[in-house]
Amino acid sequence: MKGKFIVFEGCEGAGKSTQMRLLSEYMTAKGISHILTREPGGSDISESIRRIILDGKNSDMTDECEALLYAAARAQHLADTVEPALLRGETVLCDRYIFSSFAYQGYGRGLSLSFLEEINAFALKKFMPDIVLFLDIPSENAFERKHGADPDDRMEQAGSAFHARVYHGYKELLRLYPQMTAVDCSGTKYETSAKIAALLEERGLIGR
Amino acid sequence: MKGKFIVFEGCEGAGKSTQMRLLSEYMTAKGISHILTREPGGSDISESIRRIILDGKNSDMTDECEALLYAAARAQHLADTVEPALLRGETVLCDRYIFSSFAYQGYGRGLSLSFLEEINAFALKKFMPDIVLFLDIPSENAFERKHGADPDDRMEQAGSAFHARVYHGYKELLRLYPQMTAVDCSGTKYETSAKIAALLEERGLIGR
Repeated sequence: MKGKFIVFEGCEGAGKSTQMRLLSEYMTAKGISHILTREPGGSDISESIRRIILDGKNSDMTDECEALLYAAARAQHLADTVEPALLRGETVLCDRYIFSSFAYQGYGRGLSLSFLEEINAFALKKFMPDIVLFLDIPSENAFERKHGADPDDRMEQAGSAFHARVYHGYKELLRLYPQMTAVDCSGTKYETSAKIAALLEERGLIGR
Repeated sequence: MKGKFIVFEGCEGAGKSTQMRLLSEYMTAKGISHILTREPGGSDISESIRRIILDGKNSDMTDECEALLYAAARAQHLADTVEPALLRGETVLCDRYIFSSFAYQGYGRGLSLSFLEEINAFALKKFMPDIVLFLDIPSENAFERKHGADPDDRMEQAGSAFHARVYHGYKELLRLYPQMTAVDCSGTKYETSAKIAALLEERGLIGR
């Protein structure tokens, strides 16, 4: 693979798409060819799988089924979108990857990490990112930033507890996967973006 | 689980649906409550996944994606259809199961058995059938029985080679999984059905 594979991870509302856009603008200004992509997405097949996962009618989907569908969409997205770009020598900026499965389906829903690692073995072995940027903002702040929080809303409260487990999960993953790096997002979006660009340059992942 | 879980496996054209129907008639006559089901199927979710797998437009689907989609549909089918019937004390007659994934995606397409076992770990651990009836008819005979064979047709020849690998795979699986039993299908469908009923009674899987 000639291109670099850069993944953005984080809780809802952490600012992943904003930071990806700012990094993309920075790379374009430097003339570094790259693509922006997200999971699950890309091909018709991944989009079809995405529709099943997100369809509100499918509320009785089992956790195992959900995790396997994400892994299936990931396998297809890697083959259709990520691998061809890396082979062309382009940098891939990807919104979410296996670490979202570990954080959401593992720590969030309670599936075992070893099961999730096994069903994602092809991704772990062949497509480990060069760096995983975890946009670190505590889940309660992220949740407020995005939705506002309503203490009387049962669903939002369930949501908060779930997202707190996910945030805790990401913190554990930082200890398990050396590719993961936490990025402090307490400043403005421009300060965070400057931090990310400096980090990637320091690691030799985007040209100076 | 109070009910028995009986799986039918075999190549295309081996006569699985005919034998399931004949066994069902036999069990009905004996007053044994049971359901007939097939993979992937059952709920809306499994049917949606089935449509993606079978959609002719999705010809660039990767082998990993296909195997993961089958496993996802299986997880949902177990939860929606198989487990509730077994808990009600009904016998489940199921057309295809994990052994089809091993034979078709493993021996047929070349994915590793260990990967397939891992992504189907929930099924192997919690829902191992009481017996797996492999309807044994060499793939070339089965293929002819169902389609007729045209030696000048490139696709049918590719099909034959693939199905020969699948048949060989089932033979290997018989050595690996003690739950699997080969049923000689060289006689008439009624002779085969009588053999199956006798075998199940001998094993105590259907009441006398």
